[in-house]
Amino acid sequence: MPIPADQQIPLVDRLTELSGGSYSPETRRKYYISGPQWAYAYEGHALFHAATRRPVPFEEVIRALGEIGISCWTTHDTDVIPTDDLMTDRQAETVAAIKSALEANDVRCSMVTCETFHHPVFAASAAAEAPEVREYAARRLTNTGTLGYMIQGAIDETQTLSWFADGINAACERDIVVAKERGRDTLKHCLEAKPFEPVSQIILPTSDAMLAFISSGLLTHPEMVGLNPEYLHELMWGAACRAALARALLCGKLWHFDINDGYPLKHDVDLGVGLVNPLDWLNVLILLRSHNYEGPFNLDFKPPRTTSNHGVYKISFPTAVDRFITLWEIAGEAIEDPVIKEATEALKAGGGASGAGSADDIVAANQELLSLHELIPHRLFQILIGQHKGRVFG
Amino acid sequence: MPIPADQQIPLVDRLTELSGGSYSPETRRKYYISGPQWAYAYEGHALFHAATRRPVPFEEVIRALGEIGISCWTTHDTDVIPTDDLMTDRQAETVAAIKSALEANDVRCSMVTCETFHHPVFAASAAAEAPEVREYAARRLTNTGTLGYMIQGAIDETQTLSWFADGINAACERDIVVAKERGRDTLKHCLEAKPFEPVSQIILPTSDAMLAFISSGLLTHPEMVGLNPEYLHELMWGAACRAALARALLCGKLWHFDINDGYPLKHDVDLGVGLVNPLDWLNVLILLRSHNYEGPFNLDFKPPRTTSNHGVYKISFPTAVDRFITLWEIAGEAIEDPVIKEATEALKAGGGASGAGSADDIVAANQELLSLHELIPHRLFQILIGQHKGRVFG
Amino acid sequence: MPIPADQQIPLVDRLTELSGGSYSPETRRKYYISGPQWAYAYEGHALFHAATRRPVPFEEVIRALGEIGISCWTTHDTDVIPTDDLMTDRQAETVAAIKSALEANDVRCSMVTCETFHHPVFAASAAAEAPEVREYAARRLTNTGTLGYMIQGAIDETQTLSWFADGINAACERDIVVAKERGRDTLKHCLEAKPFEPVSQIILPTSDAMLAFISSGLLTHPEMVGLNPEYLHELMWGAACRAALARALLCGKLWHFDINDGYPLKHDVDLGVGLVNPLDWLNVLILLRSHNYEGPFNLDFKPPRTTSNHGVYKISFPTAVDRFITLWEIAGEAIEDPVIKEATEALKAGGGASGAGSADDIVAANQELLSLHELIPHRLFQILIGQHKGRVFG
Amino acid sequence: MPIPADQQIPLVDRLTELSGGSYSPETRRKYYISGPQWAYAYEGHALFHAATRRPVPFEEVIRALGEIGISCWTTHDTDVIPTDDLMTDRQAETVAAIKSALEANDVRCSMVTCETFHHPVFAASAAAEAPEVREYAARRLTNTGTLGYMIQGAIDETQTLSWFADGINAACERDIVVAKERGRDTLKHCLEAKPFEPVSQIILPTSDAMLAFISSGLLTHPEMVGLNPEYLHELMWGAACRAALARALLCGKLWHFDINDGYPLKHDVDLGVGLVNPLDWLNVLILLRSHNYEGPFNLDFKPPRTTSNHGVYKISFPTAVDRFITLWEIAGEAIEDPVIKEATEALKAGGGASGAGSADDIVAANQELLSLHELIPHRLFQILIGQHKGRVFG
Repeated sequence: MPIPADQQIPLVDRLTELSGGSYSPETRRKYYISGPQWAYAYEGHALFHAATRRPVPFEEVIRALGEIGISCWTTHDTDVIPTDDLMTDRQAETVAAIKSALEANDVRCSMVTCETFHHPVFAASAAAEAPEVREYAARRLTNTGTLGYMIQGAIDETQTLSWFADGINAACERDIVVAKERGRDTLKHCLEAKPFEPVSQIILPTSDAMLAFISSGLLTHPEMVGLNPEYLHELMWGAACRAALARALLCGKLWHFDINDGYPLKHDVDLGVGLVNPLDWLNVLILLRSHNYEGPFNLDFKPPRTTSNHGVYKISFPTAVDRFITLWEIAGEAIEDPVIKEATEALKAGGGASGAGSADDIVAANQELLSLHELIPHRLFQILIGQHKGRVFG
Repeated sequence: MPIPADQQIPLVDRLTELSGGSYSPETRRKYYISGPQWAYAYEGHALFHAATRRPVPFEEVIRALGEIGISCWTTHDTDVIPTDDLMTDRQAETVAAIKSALEANDVRCSMVTCETFHHPVFAASAAAEAPEVREYAARRLTNTGTLGYMIQGAIDETQTLSWFADGINAACERDIVVAKERGRDTLKHCLEAKPFEPVSQIILPTSDAMLAFISSGLLTHPEMVGLNPEYLHELMWGAACRAALARALLCGKLWHFDINDGYPLKHDVDLGVGLVNPLDWLNVLILLRSHNYEGPFNLDFKPPRTTSNHGVYKISFPTAVDRFITLWEIAGEAIEDPVIKEATEALKAGGGASGAGSADDIVAANQELLSLHELIPHRLFQILIGQHKGRVFG
Repeated sequence: MPIPADQQIPLVDRLTELSGGSYSPETRRKYYISGPQWAYAYEGHALFHAATRRPVPFEEVIRALGEIGISCWTTHDTDVIPTDDLMTDRQAETVAAIKSALEANDVRCSMVTCETFHHPVFAASAAAEAPEVREYAARRLTNTGTLGYMIQGAIDETQTLSWFADGINAACERDIVVAKERGRDTLKHCLEAKPFEPVSQIILPTSDAMLAFISSGLLTHPEMVGLNPEYLHELMWGAACRAALARALLCGKLWHFDINDGYPLKHDVDLGVGLVNPLDWLNVLILLRSHNYEGPFNLDFKPPRTTSNHGVYKISFPTAVDRFITLWEIAGEAIEDPVIKEATEALKAGGGASGAGSADDIVAANQELLSLHELIPHRLFQILIGQHKGRVFG
Repeated sequence: MPIPADQQIPLVDRLTELSGGSYSPETRRKYYISGPQWAYAYEGHALFHAATRRPVPFEEVIRALGEIGISCWTTHDTDVIPTDDLMTDRQAETVAAIKSALEANDVRCSMVTCETFHHPVFAASAAAEAPEVREYAARRLTNTGTLGYMIQGAIDETQTLSWFADGINAACERDIVVAKERGRDTLKHCLEAKPFEPVSQIILPTSDAMLAFISSGLLTHPEMVGLNPEYLHELMWGAACRAALARALLCGKLWHFDINDGYPLKHDVDLGVGLVNPLDWLNVLILLRSHNYEGPFNLDFKPPRTTSNHGVYKISFPTAVDRFITLWEIAGEAIEDPVIKEATEALKAGGGASGAGSADDIVAANQELLSLHELIPHRLFQILIGQHKGRVFG
């Protein structure tokens, strides 16, 4: 029995409500979560996929974020200003309109990023061989871009990287001037790595490669440059995202974090956080809570092609926020769990080394203790599903 | 403060008990779960890893399975009988001893598989060019083996596959004779796919390749040959394991299932079921429960190198069984969930096609309904963590 | 010193000519190579990439193929006919215009395929839950489509596959009627697998999965359905493409072959054949020549975003054809190579089994012979680079 | 007709000679190539593979290297000295015997590395929780080790990394003391990354992660610590190895390079250099020649399980050296190629920006020039196969 079009939204809304488990806008606003213009307004298209949703202007995105309880908005320059209008008076007009919309909805802009990959001028990357491309990119105050190739051999990667450093240096130096003029601090310039796609191979493919680049000596202001890792971009090269974030934390460079989900070593599907790898996400959030990460969590995902504009507002964004909050709270439970605490302390105490301290002595002294390495992940499974709170089955 | 060796087992046991959530041996025996000799007795070694555990003879494995409540035992021929003893009187003696051990512990043998990859005679595979290797393999009643290569070019794959078919045909034909002699049914001969490792590329790399091979016309008794998929082996080539199992179900060939966990597109780590991908496992078990799969679940995992022999008995095997049962029960909850049921029915009803039935008409008639595609996986997340049972946070 | 726009084409043409090694149009026409409308007319765009080339109508593509010496043209229905015009009188007009263009340029159409993934009506796949979508797809005479999902759980894969079979059955049954009416043979209906992208996971992800599906019993005319493997789509799941083709050959289902290049386990970059993996391509062509494959080779690649419309005509298509022909000729040299021939024969002769024919006896009898497994791939390297023809270095 | 055992070596040797293309020992000695003890003596075993070759003591390896013309030898400590003999008088005796063997064969030792992964004492890594393990590892003068986990959650990665830094710091500080005592320079301490295997995930998985770690501030002597990348280890995470090396060059840390071959995103098969990816290898060597890399090339590969001890001596090692030299020479030809030179210069000159310098102006000014991006890789294909030297076909 077909369901007529006018009964579909009521059905969807009723089932969504029935699922429950949602947090109030006030609760959601307590977390440092941002909603990207490009995510909310994504039309469901891809190379082999025509659009399935209508465009959504920034006024509507910002109003929706305010209603849902997402306190910050992020954007690319060209998400809201056509390329031709950039660096003209029309840019100033749009920026003013954005400010009004943000104020009216109690949302603030937490991050703006430069698009340096979509326009044909960047066909050979923002660090292209032709100097006029690089000058234009520097004018656009490049903070990141797609440095890569479809086929190896046409460029010398060390040259490209030094040109890319020139662009970042120009951006930092310009920011220092502007900051002085306006009496504000300089901005945090965050690099976001991705290993491949749309090109075959990207030359700074991972957060680690960017950390090495920042400290390579090519940057004039490395202290102004940090990272914006994305969960799925790390999975795309098969990384343990948690370990990648730990390395960034060690270098003091974890400044912004794009949250979503997807499948390891596949393309950039940008699913909603927690829909694929909830246990891995729990591990990630345990690390970040343990290390007092207080930076933003940016909802960089794409609502699926099957979701309508209404569904983006009622399902995609609210449920993504709610799964994030839920996993954050479960991470707090894991950190306080007495089994994990005692097991961890016992492992750190070790068994001591009886005998002469040979390798074999140390093995014998620790052998039984090391079984705790397997108990801890079992306990994390239990905490994820709620067994430590008495959930029973059958 | 180091923890002396004699206090380590009590500590490990206490923390394990504190975790709770374990099922009784009687409950565990209700599920068709088997414990492999090679898994329980695995010594923690690898090419770059020396062993960390002592060998465990079959008597001890079978006794432990009985105590834990794992009702079936599986093995390779050479796990329990040295190559030189196979097909000799010493084989019969060992088999008799195994039967006694199984009876004494109320465990039964649910599967035996032929090792056709470890011994140097199989260096060029069980379907090697030299005919004497293939004759030997046929004598060993090959049911599967590592058909593959380190470097392409030395063999013609179509030739190798037809030699492999000869081996399977010999095994089936011999089984028909033996079955007639003993008045029993013929056995189920299950092929287990793995995409790579220890060789670079395996020629029948996936369950799908095996399904195609079974119906290729090369087998004389395709009705006797089916599949033993392994969860991680499907992940190793990036498959959605659930979809792979669905294809095997469609062909009526899902006869045995090896359960474990690990990381997609990495090597064969064989972790305990549910420790990495619990949500994906939930999806797999929803499929199998929905389709009334009643075959065995074989615990084909490797306790980590850090776990002791005692830990294998107290942690590895019992917690693996318990996580499996828990996920199986959650799958039952998901199948009965009213939100998922109603959403699925609504999607199948569709919106009808108003107008002339053009593509655009159909789009308009279904647009809002399709948002349910995103609500369902959100609901599965909620069911996994227990939110549908009222778990709350914060 | 910048190079003015009007001097760029002369420069590019001069350097292309300087490279040499191109075959005449007459030589190229001797190979069964087809040029897809979508490849030639691809505008260089992607989700994060704006177009860099102008559209190219079929008249221009067909004329270019004729000039280059590519004797066949292939297309999707919607590459040349807008969705709304399909199955109307405007379709007949376009088809007539195509026929004229083909005749005028001595090119013939070797394959037409139905687009069942781009239009929003296929947002939940061509085997969607809503019956009106599936009826529409059957009208479009589906031959393949993107069956998959962004997130697991919303569909039962076995149900989807049986709906998909319904679509193929409708196409075959319609073809039988039409063939009878027109007094021609029925067409070859080829399925083309791809493991992922644009969705997360595709339910028939590999050529092997399609072979198993064809013989699953769901199809009413399995003899009319075969495969169109694509080189890169096999690499995308980490397959040895040659082994995948060998399995299709064994089943008698290798009917069409899309040729291109790219990186294993990355996204669908569709580079020109031979630009990344020439040695692997050599191995593929050795197999196909050895087995007398006479089907078409379809140039399913995308000229890079940096190539101009002129470059597509002068570089992309001619060099792709020429690399293919060159590798085909090298494959012929490898098949005739005396070292490889003798080594292969020796391996097949084996060492015999001295002694009692135990495993150890067989090992001893073959040990030295098996070293030839490493000599053969070394020889293939030599043949690829021309060392067997006396190329020397240094 | 079986080939008797005593005719096999003559057959193998004759076919090897027939292949030709080998360089003289004198020519081979001109390249800075080293042969590892572990590679030559690898017995062909793996977790699922029994050994197929007899052990080879260092005396025999060193003599073979001398005869083949490989001028350097490398080793792990435990390749030649049992764990129990390390740091005892027996160690000194073995070292003296090694020195004699090296001198007698005109081979020198270019690198020694500490095994910190095989012995059970390293079951929880060389940076384990128990302090006695870390003290032992420091005594062993750890230069690298397997830092990773089978299952996430049991360790805090930032803690593990800081313990690992302690080990490296101890090694560097000890080396400073020894260097002063002996009046020599301090050693180069090289870290070798690998993304996974034998554990599931390694915490410093890539060369980039190690570069970031070196400059993280945790090391007391970062100037003493650099990289030993391995070609296949970079492919294992899907990297473009050439780009990874370029990043290491930029940081001045490319000090040692392990050469071999294999398949992207698969396990660590360690095939002989050039047998799988000759074109990619050509690109790598173009980069290294262009940047005057003069460090060692270490033949870190494993002869296949099918190769005999004789085959290791006659085929595996000589052909690996010869393919390397050949590719190095082809790289020289590519660097001097006039087509590539002129195309590269033209791309760098650019088209200038006519008009007002807008993005669209720049696109128009460069459009035709950028087609050279596709001509260059086509030219590299031609150079690889020898077409630029007049090789013709057909």
